[in-house]
Amino acid sequence: MEGLQDQGGNSGQTVVALDAMGGDHAPEAVVAGAVEAAGPGLKVLLVGRGDDIERCLEGTGAEKRRHLEIVPASQVIGFDEEPTRSVREKPDSSLVVACEQVAAGRAQGIVSAGNTGAAMAAALFRLRRLKGVKRPGLCAVIPTPGKPTVFIDVGANAEVRPVHLLEFAQMGSVFSREVLGVAAPSVGLVSIGEESVKGNELVLEAHRLLTGSGTIDFYGNIEGRDMVRNVVDVVVTDGFTGNVCLKLMESTSAVVIEEIRRAASGSFLARLGGLLLRRRLRRFKESIDPEVYSGAYLLGVRGLVVVCHGNSSSRAIANALRLTARAAAHDVVGKIAARIAGEAPA
Amino acid sequence: MEGLQDQGGNSGQTVVALDAMGGDHAPEAVVAGAVEAAGPGLKVLLVGRGDDIERCLEGTGAEKRRHLEIVPASQVIGFDEEPTRSVREKPDSSLVVACEQVAAGRAQGIVSAGNTGAAMAAALFRLRRLKGVKRPGLCAVIPTPGKPTVFIDVGANAEVRPVHLLEFAQMGSVFSREVLGVAAPSVGLVSIGEESVKGNELVLEAHRLLTGSGTIDFYGNIEGRDMVRNVVDVVVTDGFTGNVCLKLMESTSAVVIEEIRRAASGSFLARLGGLLLRRRLRRFKESIDPEVYSGAYLLGVRGLVVVCHGNSSSRAIANALRLTARAAAHDVVGKIAARIAGEAPA
Repeated sequence: MEGLQDQGGNSGQTVVALDAMGGDHAPEAVVAGAVEAAGPGLKVLLVGRGDDIERCLEGTGAEKRRHLEIVPASQVIGFDEEPTRSVREKPDSSLVVACEQVAAGRAQGIVSAGNTGAAMAAALFRLRRLKGVKRPGLCAVIPTPGKPTVFIDVGANAEVRPVHLLEFAQMGSVFSREVLGVAAPSVGLVSIGEESVKGNELVLEAHRLLTGSGTIDFYGNIEGRDMVRNVVDVVVTDGFTGNVCLKLMESTSAVVIEEIRRAASGSFLARLGGLLLRRRLRRFKESIDPEVYSGAYLLGVRGLVVVCHGNSSSRAIANALRLTARAAAHDVVGKIAARIAGEAPA
Repeated sequence: MEGLQDQGGNSGQTVVALDAMGGDHAPEAVVAGAVEAAGPGLKVLLVGRGDDIERCLEGTGAEKRRHLEIVPASQVIGFDEEPTRSVREKPDSSLVVACEQVAAGRAQGIVSAGNTGAAMAAALFRLRRLKGVKRPGLCAVIPTPGKPTVFIDVGANAEVRPVHLLEFAQMGSVFSREVLGVAAPSVGLVSIGEESVKGNELVLEAHRLLTGSGTIDFYGNIEGRDMVRNVVDVVVTDGFTGNVCLKLMESTSAVVIEEIRRAASGSFLARLGGLLLRRRLRRFKESIDPEVYSGAYLLGVRGLVVVCHGNSSSRAIANALRLTARAAAHDVVGKIAARIAGEAPA
């Protein structure tokens, strides 16, 4: 994934605030990810308990340390805490303080592998929505074979109206172009049939809005089977369907790979076959590895917010930091704001 | 799948009406499936154009022919015809006449690989709903590793209310017990979090109804990842989410298997590895083959209605006929009616 190393063409250093205390393997793996990703193009603010973070940084060279800065925060929000309440009651938590770095202009983005709901709540309260955006959406990058697909919304909004789906299409298109480099991203609307008359009320009306939008390359409806077949660059759906589908997709690939691995551990010949195939299977597994485009991007707020899996490894954190830096270098937030403003009714 | 051969413990012969003209490979593959499945326990009514069907039956022995009967129907409903209208305007179509066999008591079930929407419309108009059933649901059997999972609704209702999800849970439980032999089927409600407070309005209210139902073994909410992990026996969701997920699941497994096959055709050693693994991979592929539990079962109408994939092979049709016969032998329709009546408010 050397592509992820490039920081775009901006001058100066991108600064990203990292919730050093969030995640199953925090702070160790999280800080290690920061050490991996930090460099001349990317400065990482390590937000959390100073002593803990210092301990994780022991042995890190002076050159690396120049691109790492500890920002103290005394509290931690756990995975089982109620999102809104925890954000309100823990103003000195690593997550909230990380958001404040962006709100205060000291960082351009935030990465957290902690409580997803709390991260979204903190982003909404501390960063606020972009002007004109009704509903921020959570965007994931699916490692479909061939080229990655942008998938929005994967869980920020369990209940949406048609106009929100239009917003997701706009934000997803900007993300696809700026972060993944797709020149003219096509957008598909998830439904239960390709024809414009197929679907529920939400989708029928959203289809009309998307067809009428002058700035979106609208492919039309897509079905469940098309999501992993590179039919479109941006898959748009409500946060309920999107969340269920994202988890189903990950789980189905994992089950199939597990079963094939089990098949390859049967007879002597099958084991030998598995051994011979191992390198290529590993390469394939890496190509669909969720860690490469780890995390989901909350689009529509005044800053870049990246929510990673709770069990993120240092590699996943490093990749999330790099993608955030790239998105910042390409001014994804500014471009989303301009796009939404351009489409707003006069 | 010798299990599918057994016709249950009923005396006498089950009769199933087959839409001989419906499907990409009709009538040839469809009639061949009937020839494969027909026998002392199962009589198949071949509904369609007599000449076409006779041609497909050439060479079929007299013993087989005793369990096959041609029921003439002059019209055919195509895949691109509008469901409701085609059913109304083509009363002598193979699909409508097949439904009439059940309505008239001459058959206990119908199998069709034709236009899915038309099959549902024909079933609703000609067979009508069971007393107390508000919304018939389309039920599929997912070949998850270990044991199959019942999935309802996979597309009959794009828009539902909470009480419909309760009905799906009841009907799916009866199907799981009677057709798949699960003694006490557990039911999971698809949502975006395991906690009862997670989900959209529909799911929150359905969760309350399911918790309050005395006759359902309600596991609670399940997430997308659990659908293919044998967490529950019956997965309940609305027809929009269900249809998208079913197609996504099939497509994701297919993509992963294709990619692994591609990996196994690379270097000489990888090809050799692929060859050694071939038999076990084939066995695995068969174990998740959608043709085994081919088709979806429309539950909640006065008769068994099985809708198969348009591209069904003769083997898929034969398996659908056998499953229909088993469901008839176990009186799935009668038991669903009793269950719904038992749960109805006094």
